[in-house]
Amino acid sequence: MSKESGLNKESTSMNDTMVEEVEERDPESNPLNEPLLKRNRTLSSNPLALVGAKVSYIESLDYEINENDLFKQDWRSRSRTQVLQYIFWKWALAFLVGLLTGVIATLINLAIENIAGYKLLAVVNFIQKERYLTGFLYFTGANFILTFVASILCVCFAPTAAGPGIPEIKAYLNGVDTPNMYGATTLFVKIIGSIGAVSAGLDLGKEGPLVHIGSCIASLLGQGGPDNYRIKWRWLRYFNNDRDRRDLITCGASSGVCAAFRAPVGGVLFALEEVATWWRSALLWRTFFSTAVVVVVLRTTIELCHKGKCGLFGEGGLIMFDVSDVTVNYNVIDIIPVVIIGVLGGVLGSLYNYLLHKVLRLYNLINQKGKMYKLLLSLSVALFTSICQYCLPFLAKCTPCDPSLSEVCPTNGRSGNFKQFNCPNGHYNDLATLLLTTNDDAVRNIFSTNTPFEYQPFSIVIFFGLYCILGLITFGIAVPSGLFLPIILMGSGYGRLLGMLMRPHTNIDQGLFAVLGAASLMAGSMRMTVSLCVIFLELTNNLLLLPITMIVLLIAKTVGDSFNPSIYEIILHLKGLPFMDANPEPWMRNLTVGELVDVKPAVISFRGVEKVANIVNALRNTTHNGFPVMDCGVVPATGVASEATELHGIILRAHLIQVLKKKWFLKEKRRTEEWEVREKFTWVELAEREGNIEDVAVTKEEMEMFVDLHPLTNTTPFTVLESMSVAKAMVLFRQVGLRHMLVVPKYQASGVSPVIGILTRQDLLAHNILTVFPQLSKPKRK
Amino acid sequence: MSKESGLNKESTSMNDTMVEEVEERDPESNPLNEPLLKRNRTLSSNPLALVGAKVSYIESLDYEINENDLFKQDWRSRSRTQVLQYIFWKWALAFLVGLLTGVIATLINLAIENIAGYKLLAVVNFIQKERYLTGFLYFTGANFILTFVASILCVCFAPTAAGPGIPEIKAYLNGVDTPNMYGATTLFVKIIGSIGAVSAGLDLGKEGPLVHIGSCIASLLGQGGPDNYRIKWRWLRYFNNDRDRRDLITCGASSGVCAAFRAPVGGVLFALEEVATWWRSALLWRTFFSTAVVVVVLRTTIELCHKGKCGLFGEGGLIMFDVSDVTVNYNVIDIIPVVIIGVLGGVLGSLYNYLLHKVLRLYNLINQKGKMYKLLLSLSVALFTSICQYCLPFLAKCTPCDPSLSEVCPTNGRSGNFKQFNCPNGHYNDLATLLLTTNDDAVRNIFSTNTPFEYQPFSIVIFFGLYCILGLITFGIAVPSGLFLPIILMGSGYGRLLGMLMRPHTNIDQGLFAVLGAASLMAGSMRMTVSLCVIFLELTNNLLLLPITMIVLLIAKTVGDSFNPSIYEIILHLKGLPFMDANPEPWMRNLTVGELVDVKPAVISFRGVEKVANIVNALRNTTHNGFPVMDCGVVPATGVASEATELHGIILRAHLIQVLKKKWFLKEKRRTEEWEVREKFTWVELAEREGNIEDVAVTKEEMEMFVDLHPLTNTTPFTVLESMSVAKAMVLFRQVGLRHMLVVPKYQASGVSPVIGILTRQDLLAHNILTVFPQLSKPKRK
Repeated sequence: MSKESGLNKESTSMNDTMVEEVEERDPESNPLNEPLLKRNRTLSSNPLALVGAKVSYIESLDYEINENDLFKQDWRSRSRTQVLQYIFWKWALAFLVGLLTGVIATLINLAIENIAGYKLLAVVNFIQKERYLTGFLYFTGANFILTFVASILCVCFAPTAAGPGIPEIKAYLNGVDTPNMYGATTLFVKIIGSIGAVSAGLDLGKEGPLVHIGSCIASLLGQGGPDNYRIKWRWLRYFNNDRDRRDLITCGASSGVCAAFRAPVGGVLFALEEVATWWRSALLWRTFFSTAVVVVVLRTTIELCHKGKCGLFGEGGLIMFDVSDVTVNYNVIDIIPVVIIGVLGGVLGSLYNYLLHKVLRLYNLINQKGKMYKLLLSLSVALFTSICQYCLPFLAKCTPCDPSLSEVCPTNGRSGNFKQFNCPNGHYNDLATLLLTTNDDAVRNIFSTNTPFEYQPFSIVIFFGLYCILGLITFGIAVPSGLFLPIILMGSGYGRLLGMLMRPHTNIDQGLFAVLGAASLMAGSMRMTVSLCVIFLELTNNLLLLPITMIVLLIAKTVGDSFNPSIYEIILHLKGLPFMDANPEPWMRNLTVGELVDVKPAVISFRGVEKVANIVNALRNTTHNGFPVMDCGVVPATGVASEATELHGIILRAHLIQVLKKKWFLKEKRRTEEWEVREKFTWVELAEREGNIEDVAVTKEEMEMFVDLHPLTNTTPFTVLESMSVAKAMVLFRQVGLRHMLVVPKYQASGVSPVIGILTRQDLLAHNILTVFPQLSKPKRK
Repeated sequence: MSKESGLNKESTSMNDTMVEEVEERDPESNPLNEPLLKRNRTLSSNPLALVGAKVSYIESLDYEINENDLFKQDWRSRSRTQVLQYIFWKWALAFLVGLLTGVIATLINLAIENIAGYKLLAVVNFIQKERYLTGFLYFTGANFILTFVASILCVCFAPTAAGPGIPEIKAYLNGVDTPNMYGATTLFVKIIGSIGAVSAGLDLGKEGPLVHIGSCIASLLGQGGPDNYRIKWRWLRYFNNDRDRRDLITCGASSGVCAAFRAPVGGVLFALEEVATWWRSALLWRTFFSTAVVVVVLRTTIELCHKGKCGLFGEGGLIMFDVSDVTVNYNVIDIIPVVIIGVLGGVLGSLYNYLLHKVLRLYNLINQKGKMYKLLLSLSVALFTSICQYCLPFLAKCTPCDPSLSEVCPTNGRSGNFKQFNCPNGHYNDLATLLLTTNDDAVRNIFSTNTPFEYQPFSIVIFFGLYCILGLITFGIAVPSGLFLPIILMGSGYGRLLGMLMRPHTNIDQGLFAVLGAASLMAGSMRMTVSLCVIFLELTNNLLLLPITMIVLLIAKTVGDSFNPSIYEIILHLKGLPFMDANPEPWMRNLTVGELVDVKPAVISFRGVEKVANIVNALRNTTHNGFPVMDCGVVPATGVASEATELHGIILRAHLIQVLKKKWFLKEKRRTEEWEVREKFTWVELAEREGNIEDVAVTKEEMEMFVDLHPLTNTTPFTVLESMSVAKAMVLFRQVGLRHMLVVPKYQASGVSPVIGILTRQDLLAHNILTVFPQLSKPKRK
């Protein structure tokens, strides 16, 4: 929060009350500053967001290539070797991201399967001896401790490690940098926390956290290690820019999905459809390479573990929930249950989004009260989960085993279908089969095919009801938690239930009903289509299911979209991240950027050779990150009089701070030569975006000196005419990935400033614009 | 070619010799027109391209939303009903595209299977009676006639129907409109021609043509029918713009791929990775819907045909080449053959691209000589193909059937493995199994798994050699032809051969080797990754193959890319389509748009209220499609003197022609009111982009009258500063999908024109820039 001290021009309280006294303070006034629409308030950016239930200062990322003299020089001199080095390391990093994500995913799986496995084995032992209370205490106690470890780490060391992390990654790839998201501590806490939380049997998955882990690995590799211990290899400097980091994090995110679901193509598509904002064919290829590496790693480790060297881990292959043994045989009439599942998925999915939003708002209030509250919340949820999981199976009746089945029945091992629990030999407890096991095994059991009589409707109803409650109350607690698995569990519950009801009328297996239910709820809540379809294909290994899966997904998404936005968008909004949507609002066509600029404080610009004092003042008094550089002079060739003003470009705050730090001052007002700059600055230094104006000390004499800003100015900024509509400006801003967009006047005359304003991400957000121009949203309500 | 008459400013001959006398002719001169780099020649756009071996006039598409007063009016008044109507029809059209593509694909399959089937049955009958010569004449004659039909249709009625059409669709989605590509005639010829050519046993597939067919259907639906018989429904007008048509054609292309391979996800990804230039999440979803419809249609018709109602058609389900019966069991050591296949695929793929390029250049020369030559070329290729297919199997030895196999052996039916051909009972001819059958069956036979001794190496070598030759000579002939199947055939040939060589050292089945070979050659030639991977997944129904397929594809693409560009890019270049690449060339950073504009003829602009004579002259003497509109006046609020010039926006040629046609002239020089415009023009008329200046007759009196251009001017054009680098300008141009980009001066002074030039697609193409600034490419060669 220390950064806020300089925010006197732009700061706002979290309640969106706008500071209105800005206008009087402005020393400069813009000659074109005539409001075209009645001005209500001042457009004010709000650079604060609630991330990890903590108010953070949000920075925009800068994907634009900063073409100043030094950059051009660097680019021109970059030799063929250096280019090859860059390409080599680009691919090597993609390889390493895949490799490390794969290895860490395996380790997490290994740890979870062993911890949860030994825990469950011990509990089963107590139960077999009918020591139910000891079993209960052991089960609850173990879960309590595991949750405590996960939660205390999150609360004390890395609040950003709580939750799935996918919304923040989505925001990052959209151009919003959330602080402390990709550090080494976060990575460590996420790994340990995820192991703890999943082993504790909480209703959450390791999928979301794995996506975050992949991104952390990518970010750490790209910057050469943790913040304080960075490797400063020369080639690593090539990646010290927001564009390359963005690409790496995209690779990391898809590797994470791939590692979570063992779905390489699904991982790439997930990154493409849900996470990424910018996409290129070349990136498609690189992410594909990363996921290929992950798959090879997973396959190798699974092969190694098959020989029983990994404790209780080692069952199962690359396909997690194989349902390929069913011959899918459906007729036209089967379209009816399929449509019903789709509609149900859409309705329930949007209802889930709605309720989760409410719960998260409540949790935010609790979490903001302090660390202790966070911890208590997590522990009570864990306690509730354990009690329900252990006690509810006692409500179910024991079912006799069907001798015609080839599967073992009953089972008492770590995993397996048909759990014996409290039942006599030859009988099994169907609710225990679903509750007293790991989440992965629960999914496997409820997906089990060719067992139409395995579950009683009553048990499935209890299962579904319990997981609806758990799914709502678990997500917001302070542990790393994924959303995929809870939704799959809920969805498979009502899917299988529907299958039981429909049994007389359809050929579709109940296991497939469960799969379709899970898919429909995912689509209804997360609103993905192609990537979900491929992920389910890769999860279940049944290509013949494809056409009906597609229909289910399309219906569920359509129904869900008519109620509310996707769960990730809701979370993004809750966290206050300035995410820029793909489509401009319709009313944005009726507003020009000129009108938008009018309600902003006047732009602060520098002359080409500027006094140090002016620079220091501007940097101290604003938080702007870019300043236009203008020159007075003569238009060449025509010799138009000296009233001409030349827009030289835009200079970044980081570069100004570099200049001040290096004290590259001139005694007289003159332009410098290129070699003078090159002696002082290298492109490596200019790539650094850090540095604080408070760290810079400038003496009084130096204040009167000059700096030649020309060589450090980006001479190729993107500009829009003031008559441009906000809708089009927003498309440009998002498509090209800008941080600053200069607004130029449509008038060409002496005395008119060549730049009438600068627009940033915050200025183009619909929500911010509407607070200033509330009348714009009215036609929409008609 | 008639349009060329007005091209006096921009016309060039096909040999890239530039017209150099332009400068003297320019009546206007730009005050900033000072060359910064030594000027060699004049940058000249070449709007001609060679499509279907015919020189065509190429138009750019206009994806920009044209925000003039009328548009805004229209947008503001569009009611909620109309918006819902638009959304409904958008989805209904996507549905219809899927439905029709699915139905037509089924009909094509049906026709091919029946025609080719009865042909082969008759030939087999002759052979069984040992009447080899009659069989030969029958086979060759039938193929000759079928090719003749396909070729004569293509040559006489729709030259654009020849070839796959995918490069042209790719260009269309990039913003280049090839004439006569999406008409009803083209669609009809493509369907009939594809049936003829594939039934004739030529070495080509129906996959590419199906993509084109899907796009044609989409385009025809979007415009309401064939050019002369368009339905003029009100709602259809909503789709009368380049943006909506682009989206529809994307849906059509993915439906086509889906129908060709029965691969819905692969279809979407193919469109995304290979065909489309712009992509949005919403579009992903809509194309997915289209392909889902296609799959449902295909499934339904296949189910219907299973009962034998469709003649010889009806075998096989949704999976075309099922290899799922093999348990894929591979070890780390198997990485060696996988890598070899990948490398081989890359080398052979790029070699194929290289050779095909040479062949196509030769064919272009032949085809340009006249229709008869085109026809003769096709027929000789057909003759050669038939002779080889019939005669070569006699070289193979008969192999005794393996009684341990469960499959029928030998077969004499339409399809089936182990063809008897000239062999005694209990024996089969392995080369006839591959050659004397339809291409689809040939693929199925060479992919056949668990039959390690089915083929003799000698037969596979002949097969591979023959299809290498056929693959090179068949593609360029004047029939609808796809590239997928020839490449699959070639690739499976060397894949299976490699499998035979490797047999002692590997566990991988030979059928899988064939699959991997096919995949590697596809990747080596077409350079797709994710979409190919998914298509192969959906084609072969074997998810366990995924990791090795990924590795093969990645290696093959990497190796191929180091030699030459993908086959589609080569064809695009051959056809002279101005395709805009995703990545700017490195040297583009060293050139500013100001320098580029300097070597163009000066821009022709209008005043806000312009004399009719000036407009008519400008339209008659140039082929420009956009003209800046400028006003002289006073800057509001500051009251800067009247030397101020205001850039009002850009007006399109089509709108100017509408004005002239409607004779919306003013006697005096005054600005009009909005209602005056609205009385005269509706947005429906302004959406029309057709109209020729030659059709407009203006009297002498009218020439002296005025037009108020303000209400028809797009006030929100995209602009760049003259100091912007070409690299960044190109990224903007492509990302936002522009047709015209205004270049504004960086100087702000009276007397400076607010627009110093207009850049179009042709100006930003690397090839065109290099002819004017040849020195730029030098650093690259270092």
